[in-house]
Amino acid sequence: MIPVNPERFLNDLHALRAIGASGVGKGVVRPAYTAKDIEARDWLAARMQAAGLTPHFDPMGSVFGLADGPSLLMGSHSDTQPEGGWLDGALGVIAALEVARASKEAGGPAVSVVSFEDEEGRFGVTTGSAAWTGVLPEEKIADLVDPKGISLPEARAAMGGRLGDWVDPKQFTGFLEMHIEQGPLLDQTGGRIGVVEAIVGIRDMVIRFEGQQNHAGTTPMALRRDAFQALARFNTLINERFRNVVTPATVWTVGHVSLHPNAHSVVPGKVSFSMQWRDGDVERLKRMEALIRETAEEVAETMGMTLAFGSMLGVEPVAMDPTMRAALAMAAEEEAPGQWRHMPSGALHDASNMARLMPAAMLFVPSIGGVSHDFSEDTDEADLVAGLNVLARAVARMQG
Amino acid sequence: MIPVNPERFLNDLHALRAIGASGVGKGVVRPAYTAKDIEARDWLAARMQAAGLTPHFDPMGSVFGLADGPSLLMGSHSDTQPEGGWLDGALGVIAALEVARASKEAGGPAVSVVSFEDEEGRFGVTTGSAAWTGVLPEEKIADLVDPKGISLPEARAAMGGRLGDWVDPKQFTGFLEMHIEQGPLLDQTGGRIGVVEAIVGIRDMVIRFEGQQNHAGTTPMALRRDAFQALARFNTLINERFRNVVTPATVWTVGHVSLHPNAHSVVPGKVSFSMQWRDGDVERLKRMEALIRETAEEVAETMGMTLAFGSMLGVEPVAMDPTMRAALAMAAEEEAPGQWRHMPSGALHDASNMARLMPAAMLFVPSIGGVSHDFSEDTDEADLVAGLNVLARAVARMQG
Repeated sequence: MIPVNPERFLNDLHALRAIGASGVGKGVVRPAYTAKDIEARDWLAARMQAAGLTPHFDPMGSVFGLADGPSLLMGSHSDTQPEGGWLDGALGVIAALEVARASKEAGGPAVSVVSFEDEEGRFGVTTGSAAWTGVLPEEKIADLVDPKGISLPEARAAMGGRLGDWVDPKQFTGFLEMHIEQGPLLDQTGGRIGVVEAIVGIRDMVIRFEGQQNHAGTTPMALRRDAFQALARFNTLINERFRNVVTPATVWTVGHVSLHPNAHSVVPGKVSFSMQWRDGDVERLKRMEALIRETAEEVAETMGMTLAFGSMLGVEPVAMDPTMRAALAMAAEEEAPGQWRHMPSGALHDASNMARLMPAAMLFVPSIGGVSHDFSEDTDEADLVAGLNVLARAVARMQG
Repeated sequence: MIPVNPERFLNDLHALRAIGASGVGKGVVRPAYTAKDIEARDWLAARMQAAGLTPHFDPMGSVFGLADGPSLLMGSHSDTQPEGGWLDGALGVIAALEVARASKEAGGPAVSVVSFEDEEGRFGVTTGSAAWTGVLPEEKIADLVDPKGISLPEARAAMGGRLGDWVDPKQFTGFLEMHIEQGPLLDQTGGRIGVVEAIVGIRDMVIRFEGQQNHAGTTPMALRRDAFQALARFNTLINERFRNVVTPATVWTVGHVSLHPNAHSVVPGKVSFSMQWRDGDVERLKRMEALIRETAEEVAETMGMTLAFGSMLGVEPVAMDPTMRAALAMAAEEEAPGQWRHMPSGALHDASNMARLMPAAMLFVPSIGGVSHDFSEDTDEADLVAGLNVLARAVARMQG
């Protein structure tokens, strides 16, 4: 195990929290390319330098602390949501810094550190790592615009002369990211560590039923073609039919519903709703899609609806590297015996992009109440240190 | 049977249709107090006069054709929706005119005629008959405003010196209204005549479930408190539980649904939806309310929701007079043996108000496709004449 220093780790984490502190709980306001984000990156670069790493800003503003020669890359992101928590991203960056620093001090394996820019997506989705890994083509970067109409190049100009060339990924043997779970599973099941099996794939489709709009007083039940009832029937059937296909980690959501005309006294003639499903396994995502289509068609047929499917949006699942996962699992069992689990990541992370370039793996620690993207986001400090220790044990195994 | 003249009846009906004809199919544009509405009422007054009745405009602009001495009052309304059909209201007025005229010519029972003003509710709900019957208090009339901000007194001023005093209802022995069904039941079941049992009562309540808004990727299904799923469960259960309580004439509708935050990637934390139910029997309306409340509470309990009920809006059911109904039923069986039915009125009509003052009854003829409040509203002329004949037979029975 690399001899990490929990006190130094927590001190750095709180020091980073102070940059852009919201004044509400432990909340932080440090969106990508704002003055506080840049101040945090300058602070990080100085801490990297002090740890014997070579600081480097890439063309997106992602800041690297590079070890000499081949190394394991660790990190996450230090930008936040407009109203963010103190751990989302920052935890993985400071843990990486502590592991790299402690390993260098102890003559252990070479570890480089990164804080990607705009993981929170002011200009897209995991923008900094997407640009570096080619998921976001370079020619599209200049076209990105934030919700207020500011372009990425305009916002990035605030970084001035800091920006350098792209970092050559060939120097890294793999990528390891610690992150808060941002969900309730560990917190509610008493788990302290989650070893991520896969970052789930997402499918998202709009489904429309059209029946017959009618007077809610003069239209007998038996003669109705009520679009809301079609949605309700679809929902009941799909919940039943998914039982034979899903795992406890699979999720699906009807999050958006639009009825027409949406009036108390009118039998709804049309409904448009979203069906989103996520799973780590591409085959399961496909089986679910087939069930969704069959079930919607059956409901349309039996209830006299016309049916339309919107175009399907998809993000492919990303499996984590088996060797790195195994090292994390062994380290988790040593650090927190019986208090860890394998689990998927239901949210996207920089590791999704990184897995295209090199072996990648992720570690979760609990989010109290499952809360994230909120000033009240928090994790017990004992769990933060447990996560740090699992990284320290796993890196020693991976690079040993 | 009073010797009515179908050709004269249809000619008058088409003559009235020409006033405000939309030029789209048989559609009519003749909203209350507009120039075309007043023109139609002047035409009606002249036709009443020609039939030997005394025309009289009441303070609301409802136009009466009064027989001498005690009489049966028949009629409906001649104002239309902003985009209305040719029969909604007009049918009942012209049928009443023909029955009154034919009866007077033949020395039959005395029949008076009325076309109520603003049944379509430019200023409220069945405004003219509500004002006459005291359902709408006289002191509130001046405060009524249409959707464009025009007050009722401003709009009514266009009627100038036509307006007279209230008509004394004591001279009428009862009220009889023929109307198109405005629903699909007769049309789809091959019925030519509906004898209305009751104008249904309406209950309307907003129900709110609040669970927990969560990330649709990171929140496992077992840990969700999804407000849309609570609505879907409620809907399934209430449909099952109503089976033991309702009749084929009972209707209920979830017509309005509002999810929060209504986004594809967020487990809905809140839902607000309308539950409306209609039936002719007050006790059944109450039993349904009890089931709704119990079921919502059960769903809230089992799914971890907080529950709130909005205030309940209600319109009481109005039973039609049994003696008049019996006369209509016998007349229907004579005119269209086996092709008529008892049925409720799911929509409100002037007869709802009239039943407060005197025995009241209603007769329906089919609406093709169940369509009304639309330029395409129509009924086979043979069915219009069948309805006229049933009235002519029934009035002879009632007054004979």
